[in-house]
Amino acid sequence: SVNPDLASERQTASFNVEELTAWLDGGAEHTRIRRAVVEAIQSDPVFSRENQYFQSQNERYEAAVRKAVHLQKKMREMGWTENGPEFKYIYRALSGDVAFLLQRVFMRSILVLGSDKQIARWIPLASQYRVIGSYAQTELGHGTYLQGLETTAVFDTTTQEFILNTPTVSAMKWWPGDMGRSATHTVVFAQLFIHGKCYGVHPFIVQIRSLQDHSLCPGITAGDIGPKMNFEHSDNGYLMLQKVHVPRENMLSKFCEVQPDGTYVRWGSQKINYFPMTTVRISIISDEVIMPLMKACTIAIRYSAVRRQSKLKPGEQEAKILDYQTQQEKLLPQLAAAYAFHFINNYLQELLDRGYGEIERKNFDTLPELHAFSSGFKAMVSQYCTSAVEICLRACGGHGYSLLSGLPSLYTRILASCIYEGENTILLLQTARFLIKCFMAASAGQPVPPSVTYLAAVKPGKCPAKNKLDFLSPAIYTEAYQHTAVRLISSTAAKLQDLIQSGVKKYDAWNQCTVQLVQAAKAHCHYIAVKNFAETVEKLEATAGIQKIMKHLCDLFALHGIFSNAGVFLHDGYISGTQMDMATGSYLDLLAVIRPDAVPLVDAFDFTDKSLNSALGSYDGQVYQRLYEWAQKSPTNKQISPAYEKYLKPLLHNTLSKL
Amino acid sequence: SVNPDLASERQTASFNVEELTAWLDGGAEHTRIRRAVVEAIQSDPVFSRENQYFQSQNERYEAAVRKAVHLQKKMREMGWTENGPEFKYIYRALSGDVAFLLQRVFMRSILVLGSDKQIARWIPLASQYRVIGSYAQTELGHGTYLQGLETTAVFDTTTQEFILNTPTVSAMKWWPGDMGRSATHTVVFAQLFIHGKCYGVHPFIVQIRSLQDHSLCPGITAGDIGPKMNFEHSDNGYLMLQKVHVPRENMLSKFCEVQPDGTYVRWGSQKINYFPMTTVRISIISDEVIMPLMKACTIAIRYSAVRRQSKLKPGEQEAKILDYQTQQEKLLPQLAAAYAFHFINNYLQELLDRGYGEIERKNFDTLPELHAFSSGFKAMVSQYCTSAVEICLRACGGHGYSLLSGLPSLYTRILASCIYEGENTILLLQTARFLIKCFMAASAGQPVPPSVTYLAAVKPGKCPAKNKLDFLSPAIYTEAYQHTAVRLISSTAAKLQDLIQSGVKKYDAWNQCTVQLVQAAKAHCHYIAVKNFAETVEKLEATAGIQKIMKHLCDLFALHGIFSNAGVFLHDGYISGTQMDMATGSYLDLLAVIRPDAVPLVDAFDFTDKSLNSALGSYDGQVYQRLYEWAQKSPTNKQISPAYEKYLKPLLHNTLSKL
Repeated sequence: SVNPDLASERQTASFNVEELTAWLDGGAEHTRIRRAVVEAIQSDPVFSRENQYFQSQNERYEAAVRKAVHLQKKMREMGWTENGPEFKYIYRALSGDVAFLLQRVFMRSILVLGSDKQIARWIPLASQYRVIGSYAQTELGHGTYLQGLETTAVFDTTTQEFILNTPTVSAMKWWPGDMGRSATHTVVFAQLFIHGKCYGVHPFIVQIRSLQDHSLCPGITAGDIGPKMNFEHSDNGYLMLQKVHVPRENMLSKFCEVQPDGTYVRWGSQKINYFPMTTVRISIISDEVIMPLMKACTIAIRYSAVRRQSKLKPGEQEAKILDYQTQQEKLLPQLAAAYAFHFINNYLQELLDRGYGEIERKNFDTLPELHAFSSGFKAMVSQYCTSAVEICLRACGGHGYSLLSGLPSLYTRILASCIYEGENTILLLQTARFLIKCFMAASAGQPVPPSVTYLAAVKPGKCPAKNKLDFLSPAIYTEAYQHTAVRLISSTAAKLQDLIQSGVKKYDAWNQCTVQLVQAAKAHCHYIAVKNFAETVEKLEATAGIQKIMKHLCDLFALHGIFSNAGVFLHDGYISGTQMDMATGSYLDLLAVIRPDAVPLVDAFDFTDKSLNSALGSYDGQVYQRLYEWAQKSPTNKQISPAYEKYLKPLLHNTLSKL
Repeated sequence: SVNPDLASERQTASFNVEELTAWLDGGAEHTRIRRAVVEAIQSDPVFSRENQYFQSQNERYEAAVRKAVHLQKKMREMGWTENGPEFKYIYRALSGDVAFLLQRVFMRSILVLGSDKQIARWIPLASQYRVIGSYAQTELGHGTYLQGLETTAVFDTTTQEFILNTPTVSAMKWWPGDMGRSATHTVVFAQLFIHGKCYGVHPFIVQIRSLQDHSLCPGITAGDIGPKMNFEHSDNGYLMLQKVHVPRENMLSKFCEVQPDGTYVRWGSQKINYFPMTTVRISIISDEVIMPLMKACTIAIRYSAVRRQSKLKPGEQEAKILDYQTQQEKLLPQLAAAYAFHFINNYLQELLDRGYGEIERKNFDTLPELHAFSSGFKAMVSQYCTSAVEICLRACGGHGYSLLSGLPSLYTRILASCIYEGENTILLLQTARFLIKCFMAASAGQPVPPSVTYLAAVKPGKCPAKNKLDFLSPAIYTEAYQHTAVRLISSTAAKLQDLIQSGVKKYDAWNQCTVQLVQAAKAHCHYIAVKNFAETVEKLEATAGIQKIMKHLCDLFALHGIFSNAGVFLHDGYISGTQMDMATGSYLDLLAVIRPDAVPLVDAFDFTDKSLNSALGSYDGQVYQRLYEWAQKSPTNKQISPAYEKYLKPLLHNTLSKL
């Protein structure tokens, strides 16, 4: 039965939850397919996550392999294909704890970087799982800076082979997924040497384990890199190569080739190399960043409607903690952000689809913009959502700290998204470089991509808001965000030029501006996120109820940003202190306005209890009963600890030697 | 051998590291004793933490019990006593992974709340470990709000016993340390009922396990609450009481008593009950909050001096990541904060000692101030340091995410300090209540405690800084912090009064101001921290080198706060936009000034490699070698996973049924 404290929250929804869910899914038909996939996966005991919080790294790895293998079977049974409408929901249904995710990266790198012949040879093997692939780029000593990779591949004209080598400990491949224990093959990135000359980093297909008995191939040292904050199910690995011979045909050669005599030939555009990274970053935002935040909001908000603590009004029952302003101010802005980023994800997908269309017409002009946007938003959204999940965790007090709440694993997992596929600070600096370039171009009257034409429109001006209600106008706050983004970009560009003109070397000047450049890039992304949310609400074709609550969330997202980053809005007086008080007033008022819809708004995300895997977040709100039931299953309660006989008993019976 | 990149950092220190260490310890003699304790503990293999990152919850519990038992022996051997100078270093040397820490809380609660007879009976038993005690206050449904506890203790005049009962699932005791598997006794907090009348929450000593065979006593259900983000070594437990009979003598009765006929008698002041909580909070700040941040800074800064990535200047060697402005801006402010909070800890200790002196003279007037300060600083410092440790972790990129870096366990552990011993938001609101009260009193010309007399000095005014260098004047920035704190407290007090005057009920008005009250309380603590740092530097009797670098750190701590919370300084124009640019300029310049001393500044914290337990942070800087060595010890590399035979082999050999 549903806890009455949660049931009552659902009776007062100002909108139709099912309608909102369908809209978020992109239509009721998508909702239907998604639910069917989730049901098929979650009703299958092989995919159970029931004991996940009690498992060791070894157990989680084994379960992930079991699930990955079973998934192949399941897909055939269900008639799901990689191009079918069901495919994108499988990962959501599994909640990520599955092995061989690198198989797709292995295949994609061959498809993008391999010759037709290589594709014809390897793709069928990989798609039938006759080989298990990994992707060995990162080394112990080098991550985002690829040019610095130390692994070498020396071409030997005599044998027509590349000899791959790990020259130092820091050159060891480190972190690649599926490589520590599973993979039979991997794409190794190494510096190519021919006749003593270095031609830079190139990809090579290298077999690392026997297809017969899985033993390591000659010259290969490989293993698991050990425990991490999360991803225990994944065998992130290390790989050392000692004079490993690889046939000439194994260098991926869509864009370049080493001929038998050692002649190096290169052709085609290299720009397209950015494209796979761009698509990966955008897919991360949805699956690994926004989804966990939606789950964290669901857990924390449902729990806050059930948890009663202390009295708000003397003489009354203890209050739901969601009725305290401080709790609302912790959780509701994170909920608004989850919606904001869901819409930004749609925006990025459209940008990507348009860019891909251009690329197919051999027009690569959109690539810099796409790269800048995917980098900036990957960084900004992952950082924002990681903090947001942590806020949700802390807002649940002690019980949030228990693994059984589901929040710790959401947090430790989303945290990794700030680091992998490009460290966030470096990504933001790439976005900043693009913005500075566009700003200079716009200032000089040159054309810039449509998304950044606003940079040309630098106006000093003041915010026209005259009262609290004015701050609920999207025109007012969007303009404030735009003004701030332009100001931060233009003032940093000016500082950069001043430094260079005063004789500071260009690279030094850049380094001295990087803290502010990062701030400017974030402000740009924040502006686009607010603008996009406001436009989404405006275009929204739905019942009045949904439009209304979405407008409230949009306002909250925007005003939370102004409240939390007040300095950048106040700095040049665009917003005055008095106006900031108005904005703050509107912001705090909104919390109470949205509060009654908080539970319906997370219900609309439509996560099953099995997806949440949380004793605090289940649909029925029976949190205490569930915490107690789940705790009893802990391995710590399955046996009397040997510590009693060994240490406790002699201590208590005072028979410890020499005591 | 020491990595040359780290060795070179130590050759250019602008001060004597050993002298700084001694000063931090409070004198060279303390340093000597500390090192002796650390050496004695860490050279003893029983206390080894070598495999900690690979251990299961069961294994860590067993190790913690083994260490706790061995520690008794060690202390006798070494001649260390609870009152000796060595005692306070033992916990640091062990790095916390030890059981029976609740024994001290059990004993303290008896000493503070028990009658002389109870003390005479229980303290000798507990100090000889003839019983193992716990402290059962928190319930599944109630944490910080003690009045809401649901456990009942009904006095039965016939049997002269209390009958303890857990009336609902939510009334189960939940979280108490050492209770899940170890404790034989616990202090249970329960609502006292006599002849049907409730007398509020009282403490009772309850035996939960047999002293003979450790089996649960009649009516007792107890166990471990399962996995948490950290504290795997601790058996946080649950406890259900079903009509458990406890003799009348077991209610702790220093301040009240139930007489045989059921008459309830109360005497003495209850105010003193605050005092133990206050001392616990202050001890947490040092051991559980500042120490982990110092470790995290040591690891991240040493690693950043060794990690080279990308080129700062074209044509040169790859740069140490510590040479990038963004990396400096991540780490150096956290280092400055570690120093700032070390000094705040000294300040709080002095406040506590003075308060304790007054209490011994039966003067309880300082208790509200002590309570407000210990609450506010526990919250502010734990929140600040938790974020700081997370920044250190993220600043180490992928390797920071590996448990072997030591950073994940520092983070997951310090995070708990935001929750236990009073949830931070609630604590900050208690501080805010004190501040508002003092502000009202000061405004009315009434006397207030010396630490808050500044609240009486409300001046509008403007910051007098005229150039960048002015912001390196402690008078300038301390005044700015003071101004901001007063403004936030006074404006919130005004809002509160306005609301009440406009007819809003007092408790509603309070709730509507809580977001701003929390902000005001933090601003107050931040002001005191900056002021105290500046005064510490001023009073500092040391060589010029140390005074100089401490002054830089103080400036950095203060300016980082202004840069990061620009809005509150700009709000009323106390600092103008132009001045904010000056402050930012000074702030960023300081990073380059402190950079050359970064490694010596963390060396001065004087953590041994065993204390850090980090592959990235060791004194010798051989990070890649150590990561590789440690990873090989992982249990994931100790066996071929059964997943190969079961799932991988049939997949690769294409012999999976039905595939």
